[in-house]
Amino acid sequence: MKTTETPLTDLEIARNAAMKPIGEIAEKAGIPEDALEPYGRYKGKIDISRLPQKEEDGKVVLVTAISPTPAGEGKSTVTVGLADAFSRLGEKTMVALREPSLGPVMGLKGGAAGGGYSQVLPMEEINLHFTGDLHAITTANNALSALIDNHLHQGNLLGIDQRRITWKRVLDMNDRALRRVTVGLGGPSGGIPREDGFDITVASEIMAIFCLAKSLDDLKERLSRIVIGYTFTREPVTVRDLGAEGALTLLLRDAFKPNLVQTIGGTPALIHGGPFANIAHGCNSLIATKTAKKLADIVVTEAGFGADLGAEKFMNIKARQGDFRPDAAVIVATVRALKMHGGAAKADLSTPDKEAVERGLPNLSRHIDTIRAFGIEPVIALNRFTADTQEELSVVLDWCRENEVSAAVADVWAEGGKGGEDVARLVLGKIREGNAFHQLYDEFDTFEQKVNSIVRKVYGGDGVLFTDKALKQLQDIEKRGWDILPVCMAKTQYSLTDDPGILGRPEGFKITVRELIPKLGAGFIVCLTGDIMTMPGLPKKPAAMNMDIDRDGHAVGLM
Amino acid sequence: MKTTETPLTDLEIARNAAMKPIGEIAEKAGIPEDALEPYGRYKGKIDISRLPQKEEDGKVVLVTAISPTPAGEGKSTVTVGLADAFSRLGEKTMVALREPSLGPVMGLKGGAAGGGYSQVLPMEEINLHFTGDLHAITTANNALSALIDNHLHQGNLLGIDQRRITWKRVLDMNDRALRRVTVGLGGPSGGIPREDGFDITVASEIMAIFCLAKSLDDLKERLSRIVIGYTFTREPVTVRDLGAEGALTLLLRDAFKPNLVQTIGGTPALIHGGPFANIAHGCNSLIATKTAKKLADIVVTEAGFGADLGAEKFMNIKARQGDFRPDAAVIVATVRALKMHGGAAKADLSTPDKEAVERGLPNLSRHIDTIRAFGIEPVIALNRFTADTQEELSVVLDWCRENEVSAAVADVWAEGGKGGEDVARLVLGKIREGNAFHQLYDEFDTFEQKVNSIVRKVYGGDGVLFTDKALKQLQDIEKRGWDILPVCMAKTQYSLTDDPGILGRPEGFKITVRELIPKLGAGFIVCLTGDIMTMPGLPKKPAAMNMDIDRDGHAVGLM
Repeated sequence: MKTTETPLTDLEIARNAAMKPIGEIAEKAGIPEDALEPYGRYKGKIDISRLPQKEEDGKVVLVTAISPTPAGEGKSTVTVGLADAFSRLGEKTMVALREPSLGPVMGLKGGAAGGGYSQVLPMEEINLHFTGDLHAITTANNALSALIDNHLHQGNLLGIDQRRITWKRVLDMNDRALRRVTVGLGGPSGGIPREDGFDITVASEIMAIFCLAKSLDDLKERLSRIVIGYTFTREPVTVRDLGAEGALTLLLRDAFKPNLVQTIGGTPALIHGGPFANIAHGCNSLIATKTAKKLADIVVTEAGFGADLGAEKFMNIKARQGDFRPDAAVIVATVRALKMHGGAAKADLSTPDKEAVERGLPNLSRHIDTIRAFGIEPVIALNRFTADTQEELSVVLDWCRENEVSAAVADVWAEGGKGGEDVARLVLGKIREGNAFHQLYDEFDTFEQKVNSIVRKVYGGDGVLFTDKALKQLQDIEKRGWDILPVCMAKTQYSLTDDPGILGRPEGFKITVRELIPKLGAGFIVCLTGDIMTMPGLPKKPAAMNMDIDRDGHAVGLM
Repeated sequence: MKTTETPLTDLEIARNAAMKPIGEIAEKAGIPEDALEPYGRYKGKIDISRLPQKEEDGKVVLVTAISPTPAGEGKSTVTVGLADAFSRLGEKTMVALREPSLGPVMGLKGGAAGGGYSQVLPMEEINLHFTGDLHAITTANNALSALIDNHLHQGNLLGIDQRRITWKRVLDMNDRALRRVTVGLGGPSGGIPREDGFDITVASEIMAIFCLAKSLDDLKERLSRIVIGYTFTREPVTVRDLGAEGALTLLLRDAFKPNLVQTIGGTPALIHGGPFANIAHGCNSLIATKTAKKLADIVVTEAGFGADLGAEKFMNIKARQGDFRPDAAVIVATVRALKMHGGAAKADLSTPDKEAVERGLPNLSRHIDTIRAFGIEPVIALNRFTADTQEELSVVLDWCRENEVSAAVADVWAEGGKGGEDVARLVLGKIREGNAFHQLYDEFDTFEQKVNSIVRKVYGGDGVLFTDKALKQLQDIEKRGWDILPVCMAKTQYSLTDDPGILGRPEGFKITVRELIPKLGAGFIVCLTGDIMTMPGLPKKPAAMNMDIDRDGHAVGLM
């Protein structure tokens, strides 16, 4: 637990940490010298074709969380700290994380490199352009848009209906003014006018493809299957029809190599890919997870938002498409977030209130049931914040003991890997015990069965309603045989329902599916529920306003 | 000269070339190990604060050209080949080039890494994302746009007139549909609707600033001076008013370090920055040129388009702001391009026609006069193409001899540095002789005097006409005292006039200035003449359609 009066910022802690040259980290991870392509002194890309074959694949530990609240749950911090804890316990460990998006970095939330003494390094570079992967994805996405508009302009041989182009442009930016735009203005030399919009790069289908592709060939094949819109006769138009898959693959070739960095504790970390967990599946790249499994005995990874979104998609989409199984699952909970689920206001979170904690426990219990529904017995990591009281922490630990759930405090923000050892020991026990992992639905289930499985077994709801629009789209999807794909739910992360205002563990609700979006390249059908934000806006005082360089060229104001 | 029946492509030649590890190239260049930040095996960024101080700065050789034609003049190829020639002659040499833009790479023109046996390597990576500098510039530019639109949305404290925002968004893409757009649509959550447009990244003022800044501090100071538009009371609004210069500088910090690569001949090459030569000044970064001067005895560099644009701006803008002087200038000419200036059709360029070559010589002679106007005696590099006949080459060489101009054939495409030795020897002679370099105008000349100097002494025209709009803008510029800045002419590259159809050496014409754009960050006033393209479009068959990866993951279809 942190005790200093004026705490260091994450950026200061990161800068004070002694980093090892990336060659040493690679050596520690068992990556041969000729497989490492250094990017600066402390980052590298891995040529996976040059990796040695290990006899037994490493075990995958998924870190997920209760429903997120504005209080913050610190899932990335726990993921990093837990990996360092395994390393301290003598396990050959790697951590596999998502790449931060510049949108939130410049906006409000800050980066995604962990916090306190559980961070990945070099924090400044990871949170800024890193090795350029997101820029490559932005470029590939927008090259496709340019080729589509050029196709319209040059005679439109394919007969693409400019009113039915579903492919949008992207920027790695929080920029609400780009949500809805008109392009092609200014007369004939400006192309064909039409409505368009920009998503944030992490919401691009190319990001989802990047994170689910098994190889460069699979990447190309998936890119070619992207549906960019429909013809005047309502037939889908794909990237293959445009002949653009070769160029897009070439633009992504180097980015597709996993990135190696290190944690503050010196554990090798792969940070690669980062799709939104609302519109997409919210996990780092499959290629990085598989690479980590080949190199390490324990692979700690996380999935976006709460277990209802990230973990569900990790198991039903990523593990299915990647043909692997998670060996353990950790649910991160905090006293602060449980208080909010128990009705406390954000302003009151530092006031001790064990009754509010107790009232919030049903949210945790719902996510425990979810992980159990997949045949895995979870471990609870109670992520300690400085203002937590022992009484409040005990409320959670006692409840877990009474309900026969393994739980321990994680004090990784203040103590790094040392503070995660209790949780790590519990996880090692679960790995030894094994589990009965299974997906919640079969690919041959009907589409409605798939969605219903998720709503009932994960959200704890009573079923699903399709709007007329969604039903019509479903008929089209079934007609084309696309309903064999898994479901990617696009739902608010703040609630188990489709209404972000309903916290805790609601019951007796139905989920309304408003729209279905086939993502044939990613290999899933997106189910839109509620209002899903695919291009965030900047707040009144963007984080960018505090950013600067100091006299030595170091970053100032990164979070 | 090339003689094989089925010539290798530039991409095949590049792939077959044996590259040295970037550490060896750095050592050869005199860059200490701790100043090199490797990016992959064959690219690196240089921390210039760790470079040794050399007693005498290197000599700068500027490579420029006659007015470009669709025949191609091969200026980058000659620049690279000439650098390898100096290396072969025992000179400690570096070449300083611009970074290619992905727009032309995906579009029509291909990359900008030279050609044949005079290329910079690794060609594939240089032509694709390289070290991400252009992506960083794109991001900084669009972060500023997002902050502007966010300012409007959050109450518009500065009173920015959304009809008078001059700052545009950018993408590193050829995408005509983005030239004119409307943003901020979709109701209150989408911000304030307004007209906007996208330029290609290389046309961004941030690219120009990046290429003229002397240090990271100067970069920040220049960024803060950018005028993004005007208030409702017609006062300029700057980046400093928005408080965004710190964030923009941080986004550019790593990109600002010069990139080190190598030529096929093993000469160290700095490739850094690449502003458009029409809307901006068309030279690689000042920081790279200065770094090369510190490291090498001979620095070969180029400026975009013909001597009327690139060389004029190199001397009047870059050399002025960078406080250095060019020591020699090479004008690249080709038989093919001279034929086009002499009236030959593009389809007939492979047919021997020495009369057409002769009729095209006045264009060369105009550019010779231009270089002489700056007090430098140029060397002509006659860049050999396979179809050129000896008679045609002799027309040019004989004319040069008669007019006392130093000239030699450069056969660098086929022979690499060896083919450039004759030109290199002539250049060494000029460097030994010294020159009387001076700028064409003084900063205290009136704005009209500055433009007139360029029109008369560089274009060979009779003077300048300002439209009423431009005159009104000029009054405003003079009122604010901005007319102390140098002029950046935005003119078609195909003609010495403002009409792209008039080739050769026209006389008795005037240049019409339609619009003035103050670029206070870059430190020049853009003079728009004719229609200047700041966002290119894709052709009917974009180069992207031929791009792919082969079974080994190598690039296919890059030019």
